[in-house]
Amino acid sequence: MRALVTGGAGFIGSTLVDALVARDAEILVVDDLSAGKRENLPAGVDLVELDIRDTAGMAKLAAEFRPDAVHHLAAQIDVRTSMADPVHDASVNVLGTLSVLGAARDAGARAVVVCSTGGAIYGDGAPLPTTEDEPAEPESPYGMSKLAAERYTRFFVRAHGLPALVLRFANVYGPRQHPAGGAGVVSLFCDRARSGGRPTVFGDGGQTRDFLYVGDVARAALASADRLADGRLAGEVFNVGTGTESTIVELAATIGRIAGLDAGAFTPEHQPARQGELRRSCLDPSRGLAALDLPAPTTLADGLAETWAWHNTRL
Amino acid sequence: MRALVTGGAGFIGSTLVDALVARDAEILVVDDLSAGKRENLPAGVDLVELDIRDTAGMAKLAAEFRPDAVHHLAAQIDVRTSMADPVHDASVNVLGTLSVLGAARDAGARAVVVCSTGGAIYGDGAPLPTTEDEPAEPESPYGMSKLAAERYTRFFVRAHGLPALVLRFANVYGPRQHPAGGAGVVSLFCDRARSGGRPTVFGDGGQTRDFLYVGDVARAALASADRLADGRLAGEVFNVGTGTESTIVELAATIGRIAGLDAGAFTPEHQPARQGELRRSCLDPSRGLAALDLPAPTTLADGLAETWAWHNTRL
Ligand SMILES: NC(=O)c1ccc[n+]([C@@H]2O[C@H](COP(=O)([O-])OP(=O)(O)OC[C@H]3O[C@@H](n4cnc5c(N)ncnc54)[C@H](O)[C@@H]3O)[C@@H](O)[C@H]2O)c1
Ligand SMILES: NC(=O)c1ccc[n+]([C@@H]2O[C@H](COP(=O)([O-])OP(=O)(O)OC[C@H]3O[C@@H](n4cnc5c(N)ncnc54)[C@H](O)[C@@H]3O)[C@@H](O)[C@H]2O)c1
Repeated sequence: MRALVTGGAGFIGSTLVDALVARDAEILVVDDLSAGKRENLPAGVDLVELDIRDTAGMAKLAAEFRPDAVHHLAAQIDVRTSMADPVHDASVNVLGTLSVLGAARDAGARAVVVCSTGGAIYGDGAPLPTTEDEPAEPESPYGMSKLAAERYTRFFVRAHGLPALVLRFANVYGPRQHPAGGAGVVSLFCDRARSGGRPTVFGDGGQTRDFLYVGDVARAALASADRLADGRLAGEVFNVGTGTESTIVELAATIGRIAGLDAGAFTPEHQPARQGELRRSCLDPSRGLAALDLPAPTTLADGLAETWAWHNTRL
Repeated sequence: MRALVTGGAGFIGSTLVDALVARDAEILVVDDLSAGKRENLPAGVDLVELDIRDTAGMAKLAAEFRPDAVHHLAAQIDVRTSMADPVHDASVNVLGTLSVLGAARDAGARAVVVCSTGGAIYGDGAPLPTTEDEPAEPESPYGMSKLAAERYTRFFVRAHGLPALVLRFANVYGPRQHPAGGAGVVSLFCDRARSGGRPTVFGDGGQTRDFLYVGDVARAALASADRLADGRLAGEVFNVGTGTESTIVELAATIGRIAGLDAGAFTPEHQPARQGELRRSCLDPSRGLAALDLPAPTTLADGLAETWAWHNTRL
């Protein structure tokens, strides 16, 4: 099995690469290392430093490697960056995705998994936990570029028969995460716990997120590629989340506990609420769990324990 | 009043420029002449040959000209081209629009009118005539890029207070149209009527469109800019159409009649139906007509008479 992973040197991508290595897949990572790092990858995994927007380069690479599966994770992922420079965001997330889809089609890929966002694509008023049937009403340019990438994916499925599907991730956390991402707060809080600081909380900390362990994401991506290669699920869109809401204050408390800190030592430092921040967010993962035959998601306590262990052994 | 018109050397843009000239506006046209022509513009109107995707160039131009109103019409408008080369389509229609929005904001424009499509943005099953409340479900990359451009416009309104609105045009016809556009069929049929040929009809010709005279579009754009400059209607999306469905066969018959041809001489030549073509399309223009205080749209007979007169005097 040959797997091409765009953005494979990043947080989620490198976790997926680990899972592919465990399956003995032949792996090719494409990453421009704008946010990813070579050190995230296990030794022996091929990395081509390439911007996915280079359509000719992507096409050539895919034609030579002839991947069975393409996992498309390369993206501009920072909501704030997307607001400051929506041209750059759209360029990477829209044109880049089109470039990857075209290359995957021309190379005859049998499975294309396109990674999108559940946290930034549903509107603020959507019922919780949110199902895939709710209309996409992204507020930020990041959500808009991801939604456009989803639509183009559907076009490639319909017009070219590309065996592709879309996964909408909740707020993913785990080892190797950098702070800009969807659940960067986990990595920030772990840093604070380790350095003896206190967690910074914007607003009252009652805002909720659906914290998803990165291992569950890798599992969902692999299961998706397997089904697609069997001729199933093309054109589908699945949430990948836990269905459980957690507040930021709860998150801080759990990390403090796992880090073995006194309840009084790791209390939040409150800062003014951030403009435009979503109050609540939680995805209903039922449809994807059933279609992909996945086990129940990792609990927050278990996932944070893994994440803390990684942070703790780094130094 | 200073007006910047992107795509001003094109079909609709040059009609708008004529209307702006009639109002004594100071006009600057930005067009890369990829589809537009200098001859479309009246003498004395300034044209800068520039690709709207050149963000630095656009910003500089807008900063120097300091437009009161920006009419954004430059686009890749061919649905077939968008299917064959979605990267190019998205590059012009998504990144290009973001570039124009950013330049308009930085230059302090008081009115930004963004031109979108009603014909290619609603799904095939939408009720007819279709209101703005129906969900956007574009089938083609052209419709997808236009929808993305709409969303980014809304983002600029919300995040930067840009006084912008979106107009979704039906199938526009009139003088100077080239055949690729939404109602290119009108220009093709007029050519056939003039050269003594017969109109080519794909399928049974019972498919319907909402044929909108280009003069009505120019009027809607000017009225939009006026309202925006008065601090009204920012963030709105309006259909611009007639609310009347016409079949292709009716269209051919009307053109034949206006051209003074015998009923028997201008009968359709049928070709196999085109894959993926929408069966019916018709926009409900009520909301925009009321908000922009516009007269009833030009009837098809009147608009075709104008269009035929132009075709007829060209040689
Ligand atoms: N982290 C989350 O909570 C979350 C939530 C929803 C969706 N996602 C999606 O999951 C995917 C992976 O995100 P992540 O959290 O691992 O982020 P990440 O930044 O760690 O990974 C993205 C990778 O893409 C690479 N990249 C960026 N632009 C590139 C380009 N033009 N060409 C080639 N490579 C490029 C980066 O170097 C990086 O290695 C993204 O598509 C993201 O939108 C993440
Ligand atoms: N004609 C229709 O029926 C119809 C329907 C719905 C929406 N629209 C929209 O109306 C607008 C005008 O369409 P039209 O029918 O006049 O088409 P057109 O092709 O005659 O006009 C578009 C103009 O944009 C210019 N252009 C294209 N790419 C450019 C770039 N990168 N930089 C600078 N200029 C560029 C072209 O040279 C052309 O002059 C478009 O935004 C189109 O999507 C048209």
